Amino acid sequence: MLAALYAVLITLGAGLLMLPVATPAPITWSDAIFTAASAVTVTGLVVIDTGSDLTVFGQGVVMVLVQLGGLGLMTFAVLVLSMLGLPVSMSQRMFLREDLNQTSISDLMVLVRGILKVVLACELVGVMLLSVVFVPEFGWAEGLWQALFHTVSAFNNAGFALFPDSLTGWVGNPVVNLTVPALFIFGGLGFIVVTELYERRGWQAFSLHTKLMVVGTLALIVWSVVMFAALEWNNPRTLGALPLHDRFWASWFQGVTTRTAGFNTVDIGGLHDSTSMMFMSLMVIGGGSTSTAGGIKVTTFIVLLLATLAFFRRRQQLHIFGRSLGPEEVMKVLALTMVSILTVFMAIFLITISHDGDFLDLAFEVTSAFGTVGLSRGATGELDGFGRAVIVAVMFIGRVGPLTLGFFLATRAKPRLGYPASRVFLG
Amino acid sequence: MLAALYAVLITLGAGLLMLPVATPAPITWSDAIFTAASAVTVTGLVVIDTGSDLTVFGQGVVMVLVQLGGLGLMTFAVLVLSMLGLPVSMSQRMFLREDLNQTSISDLMVLVRGILKVVLACELVGVMLLSVVFVPEFGWAEGLWQALFHTVSAFNNAGFALFPDSLTGWVGNPVVNLTVPALFIFGGLGFIVVTELYERRGWQAFSLHTKLMVVGTLALIVWSVVMFAALEWNNPRTLGALPLHDRFWASWFQGVTTRTAGFNTVDIGGLHDSTSMMFMSLMVIGGGSTSTAGGIKVTTFIVLLLATLAFFRRRQQLHIFGRSLGPEEVMKVLALTMVSILTVFMAIFLITISHDGDFLDLAFEVTSAFGTVGLSRGATGELDGFGRAVIVAVMFIGRVGPLTLGFFLATRAKPRLGYPASRVFLG
Ligand SMILES: [K+]
Ligand SMILES: [K+]
Repeated sequence: MLAALYAVLITLGAGLLMLPVATPAPITWSDAIFTAASAVTVTGLVVIDTGSDLTVFGQGVVMVLVQLGGLGLMTFAVLVLSMLGLPVSMSQRMFLREDLNQTSISDLMVLVRGILKVVLACELVGVMLLSVVFVPEFGWAEGLWQALFHTVSAFNNAGFALFPDSLTGWVGNPVVNLTVPALFIFGGLGFIVVTELYERRGWQAFSLHTKLMVVGTLALIVWSVVMFAALEWNNPRTLGALPLHDRFWASWFQGVTTRTAGFNTVDIGGLHDSTSMMFMSLMVIGGGSTSTAGGIKVTTFIVLLLATLAFFRRRQQLHIFGRSLGPEEVMKVLALTMVSILTVFMAIFLITISHDGDFLDLAFEVTSAFGTVGLSRGATGELDGFGRAVIVAVMFIGRVGPLTLGFFLATRAKPRLGYPASRVFLG
Repeated sequence: MLAALYAVLITLGAGLLMLPVATPAPITWSDAIFTAASAVTVTGLVVIDTGSDLTVFGQGVVMVLVQLGGLGLMTFAVLVLSMLGLPVSMSQRMFLREDLNQTSISDLMVLVRGILKVVLACELVGVMLLSVVFVPEFGWAEGLWQALFHTVSAFNNAGFALFPDSLTGWVGNPVVNLTVPALFIFGGLGFIVVTELYERRGWQAFSLHTKLMVVGTLALIVWSVVMFAALEWNNPRTLGALPLHDRFWASWFQGVTTRTAGFNTVDIGGLHDSTSMMFMSLMVIGGGSTSTAGGIKVTTFIVLLLATLAFFRRRQQLHIFGRSLGPEEVMKVLALTMVSILTVFMAIFLITISHDGDFLDLAFEVTSAFGTVGLSRGATGELDGFGRAVIVAVMFIGRVGPLTLGFFLATRAKPRLGYPASRVFLG
């Protein structure tokens, strides 16, 4: 269902991008389909320059596709979540029943309206803040457009930018360095977490899912910012070329953007191999469930770590924040992880058969597509038709796969009354 | 226990290799330790040329280390196996009880004698066959030595050769192409399987472990030979340079040797990136439990596949050959696989921090070390001291780790009477 919806969106979007009004010079169907797929899956890998190879109309098409892709994801994810029996109460007003068949259309509308409200509020604030930077630079019309496009792109973790070098030009700008990450971190936490945080119920009242997401996201941010700075501090192609002040900003920005947002303020092609590897691991982890982020998800990663620890302590159950997770949850996590690793591995293998590029660059590109991140070491532009098709397929799988798998897992579980263990959404 | 034994063997071996009589010209401690570690873990990665940088005494030291490493493995593995409650009967004469404390020294001696008999018989046949090739070429003394060294190296899946380009000189020689693989496939099946095959009890009487090993090994051989031929057939740096006849031999040899033996008859550095990736997956899979092979093991890989299939069929149990495997076994397999993938990933990451070599070459080298395979795209020779230390550590972990983990898992399981499900050794 979700897959069909996304396929239709991609086809429609590609058709719109082929219209003469969308581009100053004609593009190929391959370009159009790749761009539409990248937008709908909120990945952000590009084969044409969004800023110069598309007209404002074309850029608008990309923006709408990004917004629809992001919204669709969040809505669908919350539906799946409600089927898993996780609390999705919005101010105690909205209840979705365990079985989708019992969920009325009006319930759905309440849900969608709730999501829309959150999205619009966040994006409005984003546009206002980014206008402060872009309007003085580009004038009112173009400045507002830039602010709107980058806000939508950031909130939906799409990573599309209107500049060929992403946000490299604003590497030291405090407003950009705070607004854009705030948008994509918020968008990447997921609807559940945002709602719970909004209701300010206090730490004890948070669900296990929210607790894991908050702690996991903070830990991953600290880890990736510190590691990025440590590995790249003296690299003349990235941080080494910047003044001290900007190095801190760039470390912060690149550390938080890598898991799924996909913007960059330094040249990704100039990274050390070790940093590229670290980035690949972050891209596989991704963001939160029911969010616009990709990857195996933060909660899945945490359960994976806990399961390995529990295994070496010879325990059958995981304990975290006073709750336990049974072997069934662990099985799901491990299955999801194995399928993900296999997908990435097979895709790299297929591309290396047809294409003789630098291996690390290709592996990076595939991982970026799977995590719907959109960071690139430059290999995507060089791919032939087959390679592009593989990347499109991986973006699609990376976007739809974990959710569908989550849906599958959700429908699998028979509702059990009095189930004492807590559960975490794994898609 | 096993780890300490191996560490002592490596230190002793390195000391012997430092003696003036072992080398025509002095080597460094780093060279000696690396070589000894590579020999004891039966890996076969080299930083010095075994044929020319070591005297016959030095080569003898390597051969003895290889034999001890291989024997130690098989003995220890069978002990672990017996603790898992798997049948280890040799002609109904030998029984090891579930608890190691109840196993008397005389039982152990029977076991070791049984293993020694199998090893000696196989190696005697190997020496005779290889002499047919090497004696006419090198004369009696050197020819027999070559035959002995390569037989021991092959049976123990060590991959050490006395020629700088491994067995490339015999790419089309039928005797070498049949004897060497026969030795390492036999050595890589594992003691249990060999014993059961020897007793010719017929398919129905085989244990589940043996059935999985036989079917899995055959399937992997067909897959790897066909894939290798398909990917490399026209590559001028490997098969493409050979006459048609030799291409078949080389495909056969390279297809079977990659999982753990580590000999090569084509230039590994000349492989396509896609073939290198396929080889890396084969090296991670490895050979059989209780054998001289490395990797996560064939049975582990099969259970992994079955678990993923069962998962998508919404089943809690796996069924194969009329037996079932419960979720506990699946947990072990998944834990072992995750830890293995993490080890390889972390090692590559550490090496890329300190060393600016080709990424694929480094990843290949680490995977080769983990699977104790010994195939090389040439990166090992270029590593600095830190990189060498990482490779030594990975060889050690790759050799001792899965066995120790298997031991850990074995001691964890409480003996349960009437346990209906079958079990597979996963180390
Ligand atoms: K993205
Ligand atoms: K080997």
